[in-house]
Amino acid sequence: MRPNLTAPAAAGTPESALPAAAVTGDHAPSRPAAPARRAVVDLGSNTFRMVVFAVDPSARRVPGGAWRQTAELYEPVRIGAELGPGGELQPRSLRRALIAIQLFDHFCRSHDLTTERIDAVATSAIREAPNQAAFLDQARDISRLNPRVLTREQEATYGYLAAVNSTTLVDGGVLDIGGGSLQLVRTRDRRATDARSWTLGAVRTTERFLPGDAPASKAEIKALRRHVERELADAPWVDRIGDRLVGVGGAVRNLAAAVQHRHGSTDLGVQGVLVRRATLEDLIEELAALAPRDRRAVDGIKPSRADVILAAAVTIEGVLKATGLDAVEATEFGLREGVFLDRHLAGRCGPEGEPLPLYPDVGDAAVRNLAARYDEDPAHSDHVEHLALELFDRLAELGVHDGDPAERRLVAAAAALHDIGMAVGYDDHHKHGRYLVVTNGLPGFSPPETALIGQAIRYHRKGSPTMKPFRALERDGDEQRLDRISALLRLAEGMERGHDQAVRRVECSRDGDEVTLDMRCGPDGAPVARWAAEGQAALVRRAFGVRLTVTEAAA
Amino acid sequence: MRPNLTAPAAAGTPESALPAAAVTGDHAPSRPAAPARRAVVDLGSNTFRMVVFAVDPSARRVPGGAWRQTAELYEPVRIGAELGPGGELQPRSLRRALIAIQLFDHFCRSHDLTTERIDAVATSAIREAPNQAAFLDQARDISRLNPRVLTREQEATYGYLAAVNSTTLVDGGVLDIGGGSLQLVRTRDRRATDARSWTLGAVRTTERFLPGDAPASKAEIKALRRHVERELADAPWVDRIGDRLVGVGGAVRNLAAAVQHRHGSTDLGVQGVLVRRATLEDLIEELAALAPRDRRAVDGIKPSRADVILAAAVTIEGVLKATGLDAVEATEFGLREGVFLDRHLAGRCGPEGEPLPLYPDVGDAAVRNLAARYDEDPAHSDHVEHLALELFDRLAELGVHDGDPAERRLVAAAAALHDIGMAVGYDDHHKHGRYLVVTNGLPGFSPPETALIGQAIRYHRKGSPTMKPFRALERDGDEQRLDRISALLRLAEGMERGHDQAVRRVECSRDGDEVTLDMRCGPDGAPVARWAAEGQAALVRRAFGVRLTVTEAAA
Repeated sequence: MRPNLTAPAAAGTPESALPAAAVTGDHAPSRPAAPARRAVVDLGSNTFRMVVFAVDPSARRVPGGAWRQTAELYEPVRIGAELGPGGELQPRSLRRALIAIQLFDHFCRSHDLTTERIDAVATSAIREAPNQAAFLDQARDISRLNPRVLTREQEATYGYLAAVNSTTLVDGGVLDIGGGSLQLVRTRDRRATDARSWTLGAVRTTERFLPGDAPASKAEIKALRRHVERELADAPWVDRIGDRLVGVGGAVRNLAAAVQHRHGSTDLGVQGVLVRRATLEDLIEELAALAPRDRRAVDGIKPSRADVILAAAVTIEGVLKATGLDAVEATEFGLREGVFLDRHLAGRCGPEGEPLPLYPDVGDAAVRNLAARYDEDPAHSDHVEHLALELFDRLAELGVHDGDPAERRLVAAAAALHDIGMAVGYDDHHKHGRYLVVTNGLPGFSPPETALIGQAIRYHRKGSPTMKPFRALERDGDEQRLDRISALLRLAEGMERGHDQAVRRVECSRDGDEVTLDMRCGPDGAPVARWAAEGQAALVRRAFGVRLTVTEAAA
Repeated sequence: MRPNLTAPAAAGTPESALPAAAVTGDHAPSRPAAPARRAVVDLGSNTFRMVVFAVDPSARRVPGGAWRQTAELYEPVRIGAELGPGGELQPRSLRRALIAIQLFDHFCRSHDLTTERIDAVATSAIREAPNQAAFLDQARDISRLNPRVLTREQEATYGYLAAVNSTTLVDGGVLDIGGGSLQLVRTRDRRATDARSWTLGAVRTTERFLPGDAPASKAEIKALRRHVERELADAPWVDRIGDRLVGVGGAVRNLAAAVQHRHGSTDLGVQGVLVRRATLEDLIEELAALAPRDRRAVDGIKPSRADVILAAAVTIEGVLKATGLDAVEATEFGLREGVFLDRHLAGRCGPEGEPLPLYPDVGDAAVRNLAARYDEDPAHSDHVEHLALELFDRLAELGVHDGDPAERRLVAAAAALHDIGMAVGYDDHHKHGRYLVVTNGLPGFSPPETALIGQAIRYHRKGSPTMKPFRALERDGDEQRLDRISALLRLAEGMERGHDQAVRRVECSRDGDEVTLDMRCGPDGAPVARWAAEGQAALVRRAFGVRLTVTEAAA
């Protein structure tokens, strides 16, 4: 089966009906347009969820404009539970489903979300149900929701779009497991090359293989394992999927949260957390020994998912076996973000001619999205970023450090975001900035990278930089990386202390272990900048092992 | 000496030059005016500081409009150090002072803060210096700052305004200790009745009584104690000051932070923290045993204050002895806030005819100020507050709880602020809301009350309310208080789940341990509200020991 690689046809208003300002550009209007709101409703086999996104089309440097989630309604409807022999949706489940739809409708009504602003999609359980039409008619009668049933290909495509727009995945696979179905997509050069859907969703496999209220027996687990193995064997490309697997869906997120609890929680979300096969096997053993309702006792597992998490874990383990991979990497984006981004990014992502709704650089988009949301002085942040990168490049040319491009990305991110904490308050804004990075996460950066960015922001004013709060994530050399990033950020921030771009650019020269930073200034000079930059000499020495001299000349 | 009880004459533009919208009123313009910025520069004997305040005159329910600090520049200039025999400012100190003034000026220039938007005041060291005029002329020459030298009375008045506008102080005293002088003010019915200033600032007493780089000897401490005792004896009203003493100034804040570190830090600021005499004596002993530069090793003491904190501690201890009080209560407001509020509130505080710039209700002003800053849906928050208070009152009438007015204030505050965390992000907004309360503090509420408000916000959606993160502050009965506040807030939030004010008001009736909550609704009814309110029955039972029934009728 080939996935449908063009964006699925979207319900409702065509994009051209959006205000003209929605088109990305560097020329943001002086008065930003009010954010447009758009809801995505996911009528999943396990959970019905409505997410409201606010889009700020005037935001700078973010393809398609900045966006954020402004509300989420979550109802564990279980429409895929206790299906009839032919997959019929049952009256009890339908009642729960219609109450949830009423709730969503009520919310949409009081938030002025009209039908064309709501993209409602239905997946596996509804797709396969012979009594689908009656349910959808009722939903349309009692609400402004106009659900469309996704084909298997469309469902797989949305999961793929979520994964590729929230990670640095290039060649590998995407696993998306819901209540009704499992999708696997193989990617090469960020494109989906193969895709397949199986009715291996966690609600279905639980009912078939792990029914009842008792702990799961070894035999039951074994039968499920064998079933998954046999099913996956149908797709010959699965064992050549590549060396990286990104996992989408609530079950993956819960398992990743359980992994985090085991390794010492760091307050970072599950974005980028690796669920390794060995840990998964331990978790399966622990979950199987508990009665379904007691599985919520495992830290990280949500109560509404407790009874189906074991089947999901066994299925994911089966995928790891079939692909020969050691781990699945969690992402917080899922079907809903895929549906949203497909429409949000359509035709707005460079490079020119790019037909797919893919961020050209996921990490950069995440950074700009956060900056657009919280940064109150972009002229200052942009200039700090400019100066910090200029310093990074000049010092690399002089052999002061090795110019690692991955480190350069971190310098850019920390500089762009260093002042976002001011949105919370001026006092301690360095700490608030870290809080905002940690709580929002940065798709496109690994957890240790996100921690480095957070700590560089935390130490952008004063204090001795340390990775201490993120010891559990720390890699070899991260303390030194943090020193280097912090030193560059503090130098750049010092040179921009007047928030007036008085230091236009910098030149650097080197004589042994002495480095001269020559600030090129505007007509008024920059005595404060010089004094502030000189104040960083000790940190520069610690980070780069060089002695700093600061000079000043006309630009 | 009688304090000057009318607002001190302020430099610069008269208030009438502010836009008309600055006048408080419920009729906020639909498009809020851009916040006005105003700087206060405090040329203190120990530190020069510039604080920038942003005022939003359109904010609702805050006398004078909402305000917040948007920047602070801090230079430990020590202009009061090493004064000449006649109190002359010394060349070295003056050089440091002029560099700091240049820095402030640079910042003002790049932030469009014109002279009439900057209120610069000078205190003790500059006031007493015979070479004051030359310094002030130079400052005016090189900057847009136009400093005015405060009289002792004005300095005392500003400290008093800071204390009375950030605490519930009615009858008692205000202690304000800086680098140059100590002020004491006695208050009755929130009015200053007596005031006095002494040259007992920490820089002065350090130089005279605790000079040098060695630990302080017993004899030195004794001499300082005797001096403070003799000086304070001059004001006969000091031992009748009342039963409560509020402390203003950096030294008090540092000592309060040291107290917090000893008692287990709770992330709350020092607002309302009590520094008790016994703890102060311990701290004095600990600090005296350290060389001045090593006193920064005591957690809570800032490096730039390490060498003078001991003299300040001994002086404050002397005030406690002289007043016969057991503790001084820290506030985070100081001279700068006093200067700001004097102008900000002038003529804007009800009740009519109130000539003084005093918030009628400090805690309420703090709550409304925070709400104005972060709350994105005031119609919803107002209605949740209305419903929660209605429930509180009806249930008190029915004898379900005892209607404690202090608890009612907490219900109002938690309801008004329950959704402010959405300014950080929708996900986990209950946790973000607590973070915003904790990080900003709530002047007018005690630390245990602020903790209760924070935890009620934390649990306004789900979960089992607990005071666990604030165990160090917890008073008897606080767990039960939190249960009651949370139950009312969750009921009100449930009834307002649609964010549409569909439940207009509530009636309650009681039959033994059964309580019926009768929602009076708009024409469309409120099925979602009823379902959400019923979901709180277990918490209501735990909090009030009653069984809940929810009914619905037309309003």
